[in-house]
Amino acid sequence: MRIFELTNKECAEALTRLRLGRLACSRNEQPYIVPIYFAFHERQLYSFATHGQKIDWMRINPRVCIEADEIVNRDEWTSVIVHGRYEELPDTLEWKLERELTHDLLQQEAMWWEPACASNIHPGAADEFIPIYYRIHIDRMTGRRAMPDSIDAARLVSPQDVPERKSLLKRLLHR
Amino acid sequence: MRIFELTNKECAEALTRLRLGRLACSRNEQPYIVPIYFAFHERQLYSFATHGQKIDWMRINPRVCIEADEIVNRDEWTSVIVHGRYEELPDTLEWKLERELTHDLLQQEAMWWEPACASNIHPGAADEFIPIYYRIHIDRMTGRRAMPDSIDAARLVSPQDVPERKSLLKRLLHR
Repeated sequence: MRIFELTNKECAEALTRLRLGRLACSRNEQPYIVPIYFAFHERQLYSFATHGQKIDWMRINPRVCIEADEIVNRDEWTSVIVHGRYEELPDTLEWKLERELTHDLLQQEAMWWEPACASNIHPGAADEFIPIYYRIHIDRMTGRRAMPDSIDAARLVSPQDVPERKSLLKRLLHR
Repeated sequence: MRIFELTNKECAEALTRLRLGRLACSRNEQPYIVPIYFAFHERQLYSFATHGQKIDWMRINPRVCIEADEIVNRDEWTSVIVHGRYEELPDTLEWKLERELTHDLLQQEAMWWEPACASNIHPGAADEFIPIYYRIHIDRMTGRRAMPDSIDAARLVSPQDVPERKSLLKRLLHR
């Protein structure tokens, strides 16, 4: 397995592909983390939620961190970490364009099923669901990709792989 | 789809099953999030990492939040959120038993391939990898499970599902 640092462009490509991430916010040095669905567009992440702790905290402290990944197997994965700032897109004339953009981006993916929102969605009770639109301005993003190299790729299909890995694990942990 | 709050026992069962989570820590109100692998044992999460930002931050502010989930599809998922405190298990006589326990728990799952550690693992260079063992004391955990109900279960295999969902989405977002 080889690990590569992703360039900014590669991070952006991964975020364009990915939909599910985990957002961390914090208040009084207590971190909090929730799964979110997002759409990446022009160096910003767009999403929505219902009102709750995450929204309350981000209104007070807009600094957030988002992690998104795709894990094919232990030797093949991509992980992107975003540092950014929360900005709410209120339901006022001033934010009309941004809200329409958010709506369009999210509709493309039919992302209304966000786990964080789901408790507020019941069949026939859609009116109870009031989405809060927001976007994350990305200040910095970093990423890593793991790829099986030729040796490891051969090992992946080899039955003698397991004792070999176990022996490596032993060396790693018995220190 | 129906959403259920999980009991403490159900949260513990989910954490016993799950291995991959995302850990959030924070420093000076800046949250940071990374994927981790863990083993749940007696109301504590055991893991290890190589030295880096996450370890530095948790040494200064031990308060962490961990999220772990299993997402089968949009109507069937479980998500558990843990609030807890970081405790390092140093390589000294005092912590020998805890380190052996951590080692055994992690070895069962061969979790040496943690993405956060992977950059330090190169074939033939295992000696460069110095694991830092730690555990998270769980102060509080909450969880949710989504299950398709009978109506939604029928909808899952129905082609008319898509326009129906789109129409619901429209109602939800056009507010």
